[in-house]
Amino acid sequence: MMSRLAPRWPAWLFWWQAACPQGVSAQQRTWAGASRIPGPGGPWGATGTSPLVRRGSSSASSCAPEVVLTRERYSVRRLPFSVVSEDDLAALERIVPGRVITDPEELEAPNVDWLRTVRGSSKVLLRPRTSQEVAHILRYCHERNLAVSPQGGNTGMVGGSTPVFDEIIVSTALMNQIVSFHNVSGVLVCQAGCVLEELSRYVEERGFVVPLDLGAKGSCHIGGNVATNAGGLRFLRYGSLRGTVLGLEVVLADGTILNCLTSLRKDNTGYDLKQLFIGSEGTLGVITAVSILCPPKPSAVNVAFLGCPGFAEVLQTFCTCRGMLGEILSAFEFMDAECMKLVGLHLHLACPVQESPFYILIETSGSGAGHDAEKLSGFLEQVLGSGLVTDGTLATDQRRIKMLWALRERITEALSRDGYVYKYDLSLPLDRLYDLVSDLRARLGLHAKHVVGYGHLGDGNLHLNVTAEAFSPSLLGTLEPYVYEWTARQRGSVSAEHGLGFKKKDVLGYSKPPEALQLMQQLKALLDPKGILNPYKTLPTRT
Amino acid sequence: MMSRLAPRWPAWLFWWQAACPQGVSAQQRTWAGASRIPGPGGPWGATGTSPLVRRGSSSASSCAPEVVLTRERYSVRRLPFSVVSEDDLAALERIVPGRVITDPEELEAPNVDWLRTVRGSSKVLLRPRTSQEVAHILRYCHERNLAVSPQGGNTGMVGGSTPVFDEIIVSTALMNQIVSFHNVSGVLVCQAGCVLEELSRYVEERGFVVPLDLGAKGSCHIGGNVATNAGGLRFLRYGSLRGTVLGLEVVLADGTILNCLTSLRKDNTGYDLKQLFIGSEGTLGVITAVSILCPPKPSAVNVAFLGCPGFAEVLQTFCTCRGMLGEILSAFEFMDAECMKLVGLHLHLACPVQESPFYILIETSGSGAGHDAEKLSGFLEQVLGSGLVTDGTLATDQRRIKMLWALRERITEALSRDGYVYKYDLSLPLDRLYDLVSDLRARLGLHAKHVVGYGHLGDGNLHLNVTAEAFSPSLLGTLEPYVYEWTARQRGSVSAEHGLGFKKKDVLGYSKPPEALQLMQQLKALLDPKGILNPYKTLPTRT
Repeated sequence: MMSRLAPRWPAWLFWWQAACPQGVSAQQRTWAGASRIPGPGGPWGATGTSPLVRRGSSSASSCAPEVVLTRERYSVRRLPFSVVSEDDLAALERIVPGRVITDPEELEAPNVDWLRTVRGSSKVLLRPRTSQEVAHILRYCHERNLAVSPQGGNTGMVGGSTPVFDEIIVSTALMNQIVSFHNVSGVLVCQAGCVLEELSRYVEERGFVVPLDLGAKGSCHIGGNVATNAGGLRFLRYGSLRGTVLGLEVVLADGTILNCLTSLRKDNTGYDLKQLFIGSEGTLGVITAVSILCPPKPSAVNVAFLGCPGFAEVLQTFCTCRGMLGEILSAFEFMDAECMKLVGLHLHLACPVQESPFYILIETSGSGAGHDAEKLSGFLEQVLGSGLVTDGTLATDQRRIKMLWALRERITEALSRDGYVYKYDLSLPLDRLYDLVSDLRARLGLHAKHVVGYGHLGDGNLHLNVTAEAFSPSLLGTLEPYVYEWTARQRGSVSAEHGLGFKKKDVLGYSKPPEALQLMQQLKALLDPKGILNPYKTLPTRT
Repeated sequence: MMSRLAPRWPAWLFWWQAACPQGVSAQQRTWAGASRIPGPGGPWGATGTSPLVRRGSSSASSCAPEVVLTRERYSVRRLPFSVVSEDDLAALERIVPGRVITDPEELEAPNVDWLRTVRGSSKVLLRPRTSQEVAHILRYCHERNLAVSPQGGNTGMVGGSTPVFDEIIVSTALMNQIVSFHNVSGVLVCQAGCVLEELSRYVEERGFVVPLDLGAKGSCHIGGNVATNAGGLRFLRYGSLRGTVLGLEVVLADGTILNCLTSLRKDNTGYDLKQLFIGSEGTLGVITAVSILCPPKPSAVNVAFLGCPGFAEVLQTFCTCRGMLGEILSAFEFMDAECMKLVGLHLHLACPVQESPFYILIETSGSGAGHDAEKLSGFLEQVLGSGLVTDGTLATDQRRIKMLWALRERITEALSRDGYVYKYDLSLPLDRLYDLVSDLRARLGLHAKHVVGYGHLGDGNLHLNVTAEAFSPSLLGTLEPYVYEWTARQRGSVSAEHGLGFKKKDVLGYSKPPEALQLMQQLKALLDPKGILNPYKTLPTRT
């Protein structure tokens, strides 16, 4: 569909093009800027799937330094679960014949998160193919008091998908079948282990899009996405998974299969149980199948990449943009100059516009190429004319759209190549959003390699990242609880979209009152009385 | 804003206008049709708020025949709650001084639902002003084992907001303060008793819209809307309240205040507790305040009202419409000829187009009047040219838009004037959606006055209504469980948006498996161990 784009750009845009010192194609223009995007053979590298989108298992390469065991780095005590015995292995082998993995080498990758910050010591990984197999596994583990760590693509940011001690890893990798897709309603039903990018391709071929997109799409599983209530790049347009996920099939701690896998847009029959499992990070049940509403694929997509002189101008550009682009605005992302420096340094991606303190990526998705081009050009004229934006480039064909998106999507990857990364994923009031980055940069001085800020500005979501040569308890002490206290003072969220997993579970109290924590503990006790599901995650350590 | 609309309609539209045998204004055209919409003084009556939007208390007029007590009409046994004593009244008077209502006349309206189908016999109604007062009330009732029936605008369809026996009615009517509104983010925070239409007016004056709209807007409370997970007329565009409600303050059964009243678009810190209360009809807690994300107000709104020769054509028009109107489509409603007959008969509203077997109301909401007009006219040309639609009329100014919407919104009111109404609110697969109406019409023959079908086609939501002179157990027996079994065979929902309340609680099992029912009962037991919150509602009677 994208290659068929033929926007009717208004005459004034060609003035910008004519004003360029070098000729650029109609699909990729820059304004008033010295830098130009090189061709396909340039420093952008291949235009296909980036390494990041295959993150996960690939990150555990043998040449990288070994990751410290979680139980050693953090003060955490093993809970009194049973230890997997030979008898257990035999019993599990009967449930998933030939799919009980005990080879230490094969277990290395699933024991480590892709960021290489936490490491468990699980001795066994299971690969069920069906919900019934998952049910048998959990029924067995529940009876035997064996702890379980459900794992999708292992692309999480907070150590939620790797074991902390010797939990049995239950992988959804072989549960990768599409169950059904309805060509009129756009409802997709699939198993939990389907890879997001593959689902995306499948529905796009049928004229729809998955309402979720994120950097890890090449390896993350839809079940994991739902279990972590992933936000991502399309949140601004299509909203939360809490609205777009229509149904779930979940296996409860005792092996009960809870089938709420309906395909209805509306269903007010009783409590909406699926909501319990969305975002509960596998601590209340294991999601085995998902029903999700896919919106029609927009026939026209444009991406503008803009340079901004300051954060105040970024915010003003956002307000202008929302007013002028209205219903076709599908993403408003920002990144600071430090981010651009890192994607240049580690991934050799060139900045497509004049160097600026801030950059904005705006995406429009609509049903009328001509109308969208007109709206977008009106907006660009406005922000360039008023000085809110100092330089910009526009892409309308898929290849160049991907190239611009790569600058934003691959920041995570560039950061992970810069050293040990302290990651914060915060919701903050828009007008204070960047203050914390500046504040922290001053506070840390030379103790950090880089302090960067980027994220989903349209959703009030800041990704604040600090890199250092290696993990250091003293740097951690300077960062925490400072960052959390700062966020709490603004009544923000200490985890906007990444969840709490293992690494953030103890900071829940910065964003939720004690009454909420108590009710969460009660829900956990109700749904998983023995606490076997993804222990040491999501809820604070009880003291 | 709406009065400033000045769409640039393309030339071809004026051909349609020229082809009309009588001159019509540019804002209100009909094509190829004999019927014309009368002027403001015609049978449409006043163009302001319809009687329906003030429904609720107004419906309990003293001249209407008395409604049979719920406990007499249905076989239901009072649970062993305490009975309100003089000491209780004195204690409650200390909590909400001067706001303890015991006058039998004042209690008549809140004891009866607006449809006049159920009636409780509560002897006391409380009017708290703050969450703290609600907390004190519930703490007291919890200790004394007194049952409570929370009540908003009392506009529900399933007897969820009226007491069944002598439950204490806790009204949110005086909790009607707006707490805050953020002009950039569009986040509205308000008390639960704010009337939807007033909130709507408030945010529209500030350039935003409430993402929810429904016929009862003039009297329903936002707290009740959230407690019932109301769907309504903007669902197609803005999605479920599960996505747009950002935060809630809830008082639990024991009087604990659970403050999850954040204003963040994204917050993944722990389990999303607010989801438990959305749609739980006051059985798990009493919602006292709501934080809701309001989208920017569209600058251009158009409404087209079309006549269709058959239901197959309605469906094809929907597919065409979704493709051609894309992101500006904000409503796709349908009604059958019987509905039109009833709004004509009881409300004296005239059909604005040629008589047809089916009618469609399409609304577009966008940021560019010219673009929207162009998209809409392209679509209309297509459906009129292909014969999918045989006649149509278009409104672009607010007054006439309201007049067209009234035809759809006031069906409920017309039905209630036709006699006793058996109401079914179903989610069904689109291609089978209307079969049930035809099927039932044949099945009932002369036993029913009217069998009508209308609803939110874009959401797969059918409102099936059957009217008769009076309530009749034998007609009920012909309808039920037939309708539910039919729906269950299509894997539909027996309550798409109205909830279960008192009248539908025992049919939950047609749409949810036993494992789900069990978990719902467990959640109820966890959150309200004494069962004092809105008893006899939502969950099936335990046998």
